[in-house]
Amino acid sequence: MQRFLTDYGIATSLTLGAVGLAGAIHLIRMVNSSDAGNDRMTEIAGAVQAGAKAYLHRQLVTVSIIATILFFAIGFLRDWPTAAGFVLGAVCSLAAGYIGMMIAVRANVRTAQAASVSPHSALRVAFNGGAVTGLLVVALGLLSVGFFFRAVEEYSGDTRVAINSLVGLALGSSLISVFARLGGGIYTKAADVGADLVGKIEQNLQEDDPRNPATIADNVGDNVGDCAGMAADVFETYAVSLIGAVLVGFLTAGADAREVLIYPFVICGVSIIGALLGIGFVNFTRLSPTRALVGGVVISGVVSAALLKPVTSSMFPQAIDFSGKLVGASELFNCVLIGIAMTFAAVVITNYFTSTAHRPVRRIAEACNTGHATNIIAGISTGHHATVLPVLCIAGSIWMCYSEAGLYGIAIAVVSMLSLSGIIISLDAFGPITDNAGGIAVMSGLDPSVRKITDELDAVGNTMKAVTKGYAIASAGLAAMVLFGSYVEELKAHLHQNFVFDLMDPRVMIGLFIGGLLPYSFTAYAMDAVGSAAGAVVREVRRQIEAFPGILTGQETPDYRQCVDIVTKAALRQMIMPALLPLIFVVGVALIPEHGLYLLGGVLVGTIVTGLFIGIAMTSSGGAWDNAKKFVEDGNHGGKGSPAHAASVTGDTVGDPYKDTAGPAVNPMIKVVNILAILLIPILFR
Amino acid sequence: MQRFLTDYGIATSLTLGAVGLAGAIHLIRMVNSSDAGNDRMTEIAGAVQAGAKAYLHRQLVTVSIIATILFFAIGFLRDWPTAAGFVLGAVCSLAAGYIGMMIAVRANVRTAQAASVSPHSALRVAFNGGAVTGLLVVALGLLSVGFFFRAVEEYSGDTRVAINSLVGLALGSSLISVFARLGGGIYTKAADVGADLVGKIEQNLQEDDPRNPATIADNVGDNVGDCAGMAADVFETYAVSLIGAVLVGFLTAGADAREVLIYPFVICGVSIIGALLGIGFVNFTRLSPTRALVGGVVISGVVSAALLKPVTSSMFPQAIDFSGKLVGASELFNCVLIGIAMTFAAVVITNYFTSTAHRPVRRIAEACNTGHATNIIAGISTGHHATVLPVLCIAGSIWMCYSEAGLYGIAIAVVSMLSLSGIIISLDAFGPITDNAGGIAVMSGLDPSVRKITDELDAVGNTMKAVTKGYAIASAGLAAMVLFGSYVEELKAHLHQNFVFDLMDPRVMIGLFIGGLLPYSFTAYAMDAVGSAAGAVVREVRRQIEAFPGILTGQETPDYRQCVDIVTKAALRQMIMPALLPLIFVVGVALIPEHGLYLLGGVLVGTIVTGLFIGIAMTSSGGAWDNAKKFVEDGNHGGKGSPAHAASVTGDTVGDPYKDTAGPAVNPMIKVVNILAILLIPILFR
Repeated sequence: MQRFLTDYGIATSLTLGAVGLAGAIHLIRMVNSSDAGNDRMTEIAGAVQAGAKAYLHRQLVTVSIIATILFFAIGFLRDWPTAAGFVLGAVCSLAAGYIGMMIAVRANVRTAQAASVSPHSALRVAFNGGAVTGLLVVALGLLSVGFFFRAVEEYSGDTRVAINSLVGLALGSSLISVFARLGGGIYTKAADVGADLVGKIEQNLQEDDPRNPATIADNVGDNVGDCAGMAADVFETYAVSLIGAVLVGFLTAGADAREVLIYPFVICGVSIIGALLGIGFVNFTRLSPTRALVGGVVISGVVSAALLKPVTSSMFPQAIDFSGKLVGASELFNCVLIGIAMTFAAVVITNYFTSTAHRPVRRIAEACNTGHATNIIAGISTGHHATVLPVLCIAGSIWMCYSEAGLYGIAIAVVSMLSLSGIIISLDAFGPITDNAGGIAVMSGLDPSVRKITDELDAVGNTMKAVTKGYAIASAGLAAMVLFGSYVEELKAHLHQNFVFDLMDPRVMIGLFIGGLLPYSFTAYAMDAVGSAAGAVVREVRRQIEAFPGILTGQETPDYRQCVDIVTKAALRQMIMPALLPLIFVVGVALIPEHGLYLLGGVLVGTIVTGLFIGIAMTSSGGAWDNAKKFVEDGNHGGKGSPAHAASVTGDTVGDPYKDTAGPAVNPMIKVVNILAILLIPILFR
Repeated sequence: MQRFLTDYGIATSLTLGAVGLAGAIHLIRMVNSSDAGNDRMTEIAGAVQAGAKAYLHRQLVTVSIIATILFFAIGFLRDWPTAAGFVLGAVCSLAAGYIGMMIAVRANVRTAQAASVSPHSALRVAFNGGAVTGLLVVALGLLSVGFFFRAVEEYSGDTRVAINSLVGLALGSSLISVFARLGGGIYTKAADVGADLVGKIEQNLQEDDPRNPATIADNVGDNVGDCAGMAADVFETYAVSLIGAVLVGFLTAGADAREVLIYPFVICGVSIIGALLGIGFVNFTRLSPTRALVGGVVISGVVSAALLKPVTSSMFPQAIDFSGKLVGASELFNCVLIGIAMTFAAVVITNYFTSTAHRPVRRIAEACNTGHATNIIAGISTGHHATVLPVLCIAGSIWMCYSEAGLYGIAIAVVSMLSLSGIIISLDAFGPITDNAGGIAVMSGLDPSVRKITDELDAVGNTMKAVTKGYAIASAGLAAMVLFGSYVEELKAHLHQNFVFDLMDPRVMIGLFIGGLLPYSFTAYAMDAVGSAAGAVVREVRRQIEAFPGILTGQETPDYRQCVDIVTKAALRQMIMPALLPLIFVVGVALIPEHGLYLLGGVLVGTIVTGLFIGIAMTSSGGAWDNAKKFVEDGNHGGKGSPAHAASVTGDTVGDPYKDTAGPAVNPMIKVVNILAILLIPILFR
């Protein structure tokens, strides 16, 4: 068995990846075979699809230019296998986003139609639409990393070369996902905020009212931001974690311990079985939506853990020497368990801080009674409070994994955490699909009972979305640790000397400060981008309503395309600066002669430290504000139309760029910084 | 000359400190001799005075209990000289706050009276009231540290014992200033927010309308928060910087290099001459308020630098050996210049981000056009942007000072930066005095022209207040570096072994995360405290207005005392938890056997890193929102009463706890964490 797994571990994992892919294709068929509703619905869904496609195509052009420059830079300065990896990572990240979004826009309209049959069939269609993205991301991640690794290894005959080129793949996927997260996040929130500011507040239109010229742009935004952006982001997290584990294994255990390189692939492969069973459970259970979804996650986690126990034991009959530390099967399996436990901890903690059922959100809703300002203060303080437990859990995980199996142990925990993303993303993608389904129901004039069903599912989806963001940023914190470790080990291996990043070294300290400012500057630009793009939407909507008074009476159709066009251009223009910020800083610092290396070490860690806090605080505040508004709208503190409701809308609007643009984009940003540093080492020190 | 300064350096400095004290007394006489206005004014000022005194007395009781426990803990666990230092630091910090506040409440009413004569005499009275605090803080800081150091040295015959006991003094002053900043900050903002929410928004009363039951509490708050809290805070910053420099000098150059210990005292002494000349300039110039104040700072800085050049050369004719690095007079003087330059940089940068004259504030004001939410987003992003330049300046200063003179060089830069606080605090304290003068003018029914003059001065004071906060937090960032260095050097000296805090050590990394969460949790509690205390004020004001309808018609006098009482109790109750948070975490981490030391190293740095960013971001956002409101009120974007104005009020209210409670309290909090760690070393390792 040990022989088999060592010799064929990657092949077996890739086979399981292919099974995941087959599952995704099966689900796509299922979704497509559902009833797509009446003509009006198809027409609206078509407009949303066209807008989303148009955005992604333009994004592709912008990103391709930057990617091409970087491809040649990496190729000439470093080596071509790494450059090839960069392109593969970029393409897969884009593809994950593209396919995920194309399924989502198909699932939207079908969910709306299914909701006119029964809540349960709506849940199934929406969930399966999300599950396609979930399965695609893990299958694509596993297959691309695995095949590329083996291909380069075979072609060059050198494992070292293959592992180096994986760093290129990691950078490609991270960089693209920064663009996708930022571009999509700016798009979705600019359209959302812009549509709300004029539509809801000035003209008293309902959400998704077809008379609002920005309403199609708003619905397009849900797809390019919450579906495409998110899928690219999680693909990146998944691929980078897998690559990080392989890299750390190689650097700390040496090339001879082949099972150390294969184990991360095996974890990913086995977890696909867990994900498939979890998805099956949600499809066949008759439980309430929340219970069905949580049940799916639990089954996925338990099955993966149960399968990995014997697999780990048979792969590691003897202890492995990691730079002097002996690590056996039980230590490694403990790290797997820690990773899975960390997933549940992240889910439970984020749920506590962002669900309407618990004190934090209710306290924010209560603060709405005394106005806009007290609501904002309560939301921000909730975000700050929400950092404490996740960070303590991360610290605890680092401690335990390190004691069990050193840096490789942390990497294994991250991989097992991320291996659950097949089912976790299904939950995340479920939210925007139901949200959009509701939009289509309103715009195409379906019975209000349909909207009621989609609204209920949307509330569930809202919490799930917040929860998966907590999971993503927590995993990013751990993954970044692994990447920093890889940076140091790579430096040692490359320069054949020991490196110490002592806090007493002023260069390390300065690096920490510079690294710490990156997430601050990055999120500032991201928020500004939403503000200025939303302003452009506001002006356009006001212009249309003034120029064509028939729009408000329903006699004239607004020019939706114009709004879509404005947001598309604004999002693409505004994403460039923040996305290039980490690139510029890291390269700038690395080029400082003699001291660059030490400064860079500090920069990497500084970015992790402040980035983790900003990421958690922003996504938690945003999720909590969103649900506090929902809680008020459910009839508390005066309900809809009360002053408390007005205050809660302000909180929700502030929360939009927090939780859907700036906050989640910090996650890939941290990783770009770290991977870029690893990639630069052989360029700077030939 | 070298002999003289080495032998009598401290004595000379103390004499200069006494001159500063004499200057303060002279200014007190000048303020007291000004006309205190009519009976109504005296009555109102008396009510504010009584409320402020009552609060400080109760604060004294609460703080004394905690301080007594700590005194015995330090005495029994460590040694009694240190415990004595702790008490002295605590007493001086309280005294600085108390005296500063007592002068301010006297200057308030006299400024209102002077404003009925001419703007220029109002400026003089207000500035001199602030200058009393400025001079007192530096004189008290220099005298207490100097006398205590010499006294313990003489008494014990051992310089080492004297230096150790200074750590106690530092902790005493830091801990008290956390309480003062938090308690005062919660008080002032709870009363302010509470008074505004019911008075301005619900009842349409003007600011400081005597019919508002919370108006006296609001005015008391300005004094206990902005005067007493601020004075205690800057006393702490000053004393800790001085002590940090002496400690670092002793630890890195050894006990024989006496001039190294004396030099920080000399810098402080010489700068008192500069501060006196600067204060004189403001009194005699006929320039506009802003120019007069800025002129005072420039004169103070230039005079101090000019005097310190020859003094430094004559004190260090030969280079000194700092753990192997040779440092001479020119290197040290360069560090002095860097510190002074850093002061000006902090002032200019913060001014750019918070003054109505520049883009950031105008952009926020513009965002008010599209509502509450866009204003909040713009303000938060401005805060994030505002961290970049100060942090880069701090990083640059660390780099340059370290190259010039190692850790001691950084310490010298901090001391020379802080030595300017005599004049800088004068600017800071000027703001609340004019603010209160305006309140007294309205409440006692003076001619509206008086309010106009005080309002103009208040706008100047507002920017000055924001600017001095940027200065305080920037200096805290540098000072905390010095303290962390002292922690490590102290560890080395105590355990006779080398210590490396390697970022690759998971304990250091975990420490960074835990340290990083302290400022987040601390600010969350501080903001919550303001929210809940303000809620109590709102309920009381609503109750009074309902129970006694005559209040609004002016026929009944509201029960001011009740509001004062409620805020007093709430502020004192709510300050305990956040103030004890750093204490609990540091002691908890330090007690972890075997690993505690390494974890603690990470904790100290983690707190510095996130604390610096949170501190700068919060004070900048708050200042910018405040001035954006002022900019709208000046007639832009629709002026007072417009929807943009309503949005700007929301921003200002969110900014209140940001800039006056949570943000500035981070500064002493970072230092408590670091000093406590130093103090614990000999307790944990006997």
